[in-house]
Amino acid sequence: MFESAELGHKIDKKAYAKTMPTLRADLLDVQYDLKQSGRFPVIILVNGIDGAGKGETVNLLNEWMDPRFIETYAFSEPTTEELERPALWRFWRALPPKGKIGILFGNWYADPILRHSLGKTKLAELEEHLFEINRFEKMLADEGALIFKFWFHLAKEAQKKRLKALEKDPTTRWRITADDWRGYRDYDARIEVSQHALRQTSQAYAPWIVVDGSDERYRAVTVGTILLESIRKRLAWEGDTTRRIASAPIVHPIDSSNLLNRLDLSRKIARKAYPGELEHWQGRLNLLSRHPRFRKLSLIVVFEGNDAAGKGGAIRRITSALDARQYRIVPVAAPSEEERAQPYLWRFWRRLPRLGRIAMFDRSWYGRVLVERVEAYCSEPDWMRAYAEINDFEEQITRAGAVVVKFWLAISAEEQLRRFKEREETRFKRFKITEDDWRNREKWPLYEQAVCHMVDRTSTEIAPWTLVEANDKNYARIKILKTLCERLETALRGKD
Amino acid sequence: MFESAELGHKIDKKAYAKTMPTLRADLLDVQYDLKQSGRFPVIILVNGIDGAGKGETVNLLNEWMDPRFIETYAFSEPTTEELERPALWRFWRALPPKGKIGILFGNWYADPILRHSLGKTKLAELEEHLFEINRFEKMLADEGALIFKFWFHLAKEAQKKRLKALEKDPTTRWRITADDWRGYRDYDARIEVSQHALRQTSQAYAPWIVVDGSDERYRAVTVGTILLESIRKRLAWEGDTTRRIASAPIVHPIDSSNLLNRLDLSRKIARKAYPGELEHWQGRLNLLSRHPRFRKLSLIVVFEGNDAAGKGGAIRRITSALDARQYRIVPVAAPSEEERAQPYLWRFWRRLPRLGRIAMFDRSWYGRVLVERVEAYCSEPDWMRAYAEINDFEEQITRAGAVVVKFWLAISAEEQLRRFKEREETRFKRFKITEDDWRNREKWPLYEQAVCHMVDRTSTEIAPWTLVEANDKNYARIKILKTLCERLETALRGKD
Repeated sequence: MFESAELGHKIDKKAYAKTMPTLRADLLDVQYDLKQSGRFPVIILVNGIDGAGKGETVNLLNEWMDPRFIETYAFSEPTTEELERPALWRFWRALPPKGKIGILFGNWYADPILRHSLGKTKLAELEEHLFEINRFEKMLADEGALIFKFWFHLAKEAQKKRLKALEKDPTTRWRITADDWRGYRDYDARIEVSQHALRQTSQAYAPWIVVDGSDERYRAVTVGTILLESIRKRLAWEGDTTRRIASAPIVHPIDSSNLLNRLDLSRKIARKAYPGELEHWQGRLNLLSRHPRFRKLSLIVVFEGNDAAGKGGAIRRITSALDARQYRIVPVAAPSEEERAQPYLWRFWRRLPRLGRIAMFDRSWYGRVLVERVEAYCSEPDWMRAYAEINDFEEQITRAGAVVVKFWLAISAEEQLRRFKEREETRFKRFKITEDDWRNREKWPLYEQAVCHMVDRTSTEIAPWTLVEANDKNYARIKILKTLCERLETALRGKD
Repeated sequence: MFESAELGHKIDKKAYAKTMPTLRADLLDVQYDLKQSGRFPVIILVNGIDGAGKGETVNLLNEWMDPRFIETYAFSEPTTEELERPALWRFWRALPPKGKIGILFGNWYADPILRHSLGKTKLAELEEHLFEINRFEKMLADEGALIFKFWFHLAKEAQKKRLKALEKDPTTRWRITADDWRGYRDYDARIEVSQHALRQTSQAYAPWIVVDGSDERYRAVTVGTILLESIRKRLAWEGDTTRRIASAPIVHPIDSSNLLNRLDLSRKIARKAYPGELEHWQGRLNLLSRHPRFRKLSLIVVFEGNDAAGKGGAIRRITSALDARQYRIVPVAAPSEEERAQPYLWRFWRRLPRLGRIAMFDRSWYGRVLVERVEAYCSEPDWMRAYAEINDFEEQITRAGAVVVKFWLAISAEEQLRRFKEREETRFKRFKITEDDWRNREKWPLYEQAVCHMVDRTSTEIAPWTLVEANDKNYARIKILKTLCERLETALRGKD
């Protein structure tokens, strides 16, 4: 894998002086075209051997191009805010928006490779990390990101020479730390782990590019040329990047029964029993939210359902059992401008709660496979891949300590009609029924199908869906409170 | 100040039952109107005596209104990311956008009052904090925010009784901590300091409202009614909140000399001397940026100047002396949707660098008193108050460790014309001259006036303006590098 990069590639001064000015001007041009188009972000990962010229090359790129539209991030110790979220959270925060270039040092490869070469993780853990990375990068690519993964390489002897040279020169001595020499001593182990990692994460949509780091001019021209040609090619391509993914056929059940029409929507709770039940479950939820071990987890609740199914009312029955300082409700509407310049899930990543806190999503990331699917706001390949992306997302947040509880509030078409009419008659303008609501109703069968697919594909052992029969609002509220309590009790036992 | 709130105000159950449903429905209505209008944010500060019902009242408000459009924040220990910024940074992060309600516990009053009552700060420090708070709140009010500052009060004996009662009840026992009893023991000192703080920060645009906390029903109805009436009143008022501030007359010098036309734009550096000078100052800047004590400060550089004055080129001469991992360039264009829903300075607060880092603003918060003033994008009162707000902002970031260096790059009208023409002829589309550029040229005298006012009002001992004669690009670049080095050297000496 690294053989070619140990040949000691070189470009002489003359050839460099000849190539460089054009390359530089072209890079600047292509960077402005990228910015102008605003079509996709460019993500450049910088990894490799210490002393192989990672920093120098990036500095050079910043010199050649317009540094105003490049954001360079170096990740070292995570901050306390980062430590309370999934490992990838800090990288989501640093993703460049469409039209910009983001350069990431010490990115998602650094920690898994380092920890495994120090013997701190088992092979299975490394592989799990790499698997997760693959899916993450696939998602980024599917969202249109152009991804470069540069590995700056040096043979062992060359590294030693380079470190010594840097140490000797008073202007670069500061750069060589004990860590660098430790890296050199562990060279063989690190190279082995790195090879493994590179092999398992090299993909057509995000290939590794190994660069011989021994010659300053060679590596600069190599990186510059690759960037130039790839960005140019992508800009020239008029096709929609998201359309390229062929999607599997959607399977419909042959008979007419499905998850929703099998629900017994006539379920009720006796009027008299309700106040007592409500008090009981709210009290229990309140106690759970104040449990000392609750500080080790976070609670993420997703509310989806038919229009007028009673999401708002259910949320308020939960919040009134909680302290306002502990929760945040995220009403999900159209994405903002900044959110539209990022991958679909970005706007949910940024709302992830810290440990000990609760976030309730009034509509959620499932919009992708519900309204966006039915209304064709996104393409079929987009929503088809969303199921897997969502499962990945929920796995990551679960692993970081979140308890994910998801509710679908189901009402019948007749009950919805009754509620719409009731709302139209009420004096409160807040219950205005819009044209959209009536339009959505006409698409009832399409939504039903989308909901069944969603549940089939995203109800997992770590984050199951709870279908809530909601024709009777009180029944629905109690079922929701009870489910939350039970899920929390299980989770708190697990934190023992 | 607290006398009325120690009378033991009460509402009996019957009166409460009669008032409550209407109040609740009205509050919900007014909240939807607020959201619909999107005209201003509502900021509710919650402070007061422990046990006086702060939390309960806020929970009740969340129950009465739609909690989806209320964000409640409780601030305790600052995170590492917060510790590396000015004290108010964490509160800027939590400001509600227009149309929403933000409830802030443990807000900007908590720390100054607590620290002073524990004897950790001198009176002068407390007063300085209060002074800063006053200016901060004035800015928020001027930006249109509706601010409520509730002080929940209890007399000393009443607090004792209340804490005991809470401790006795098994369902509330968890809420009483050692801190609460400590608060009780220090009651007199805290009350004295609080009175002082309340007195010095009660303003027409953000008055303190002291609420008798002894009766649950009384305090809820009081807070609810005040919110309802004030929000309603503000919504009914069609006037532009920002217009109400009368502005002082602008003073123009009687003769024709000003800061800009007194500059000697013929200043030059010899072509031969330039490369050596450049290398010298870049090397020096590089060393300074790697100084161990640099980690205790941050560097914030502001670039303003005439169109085509060479800001981009100057920035690149700086970045090429630095490591890309250390700096970020913030090109300032039109604010995003999320930024438009916040006070003017919000978008700059969110870009403040951590310690050890560098942020360069290619155009900046000074847009308010330059382009926005000249093009009338904001009203005269808006830009008139911006000078003081900017000075406050720079004082806060300076106090938190930032070195603020501000450059105005000045060229003559003739030189600009020459550069515009040159750009029009160049093959690079990136240098396209827009209609805007030509239009701005016609307003040269207005911009000149705006620049002079800006420098007069915002060139301070902590963040002085450097006017850069930029007809000769090389001269400008060296002057800028040199200024940066000198400012940094002084600052690093100060960190000894």
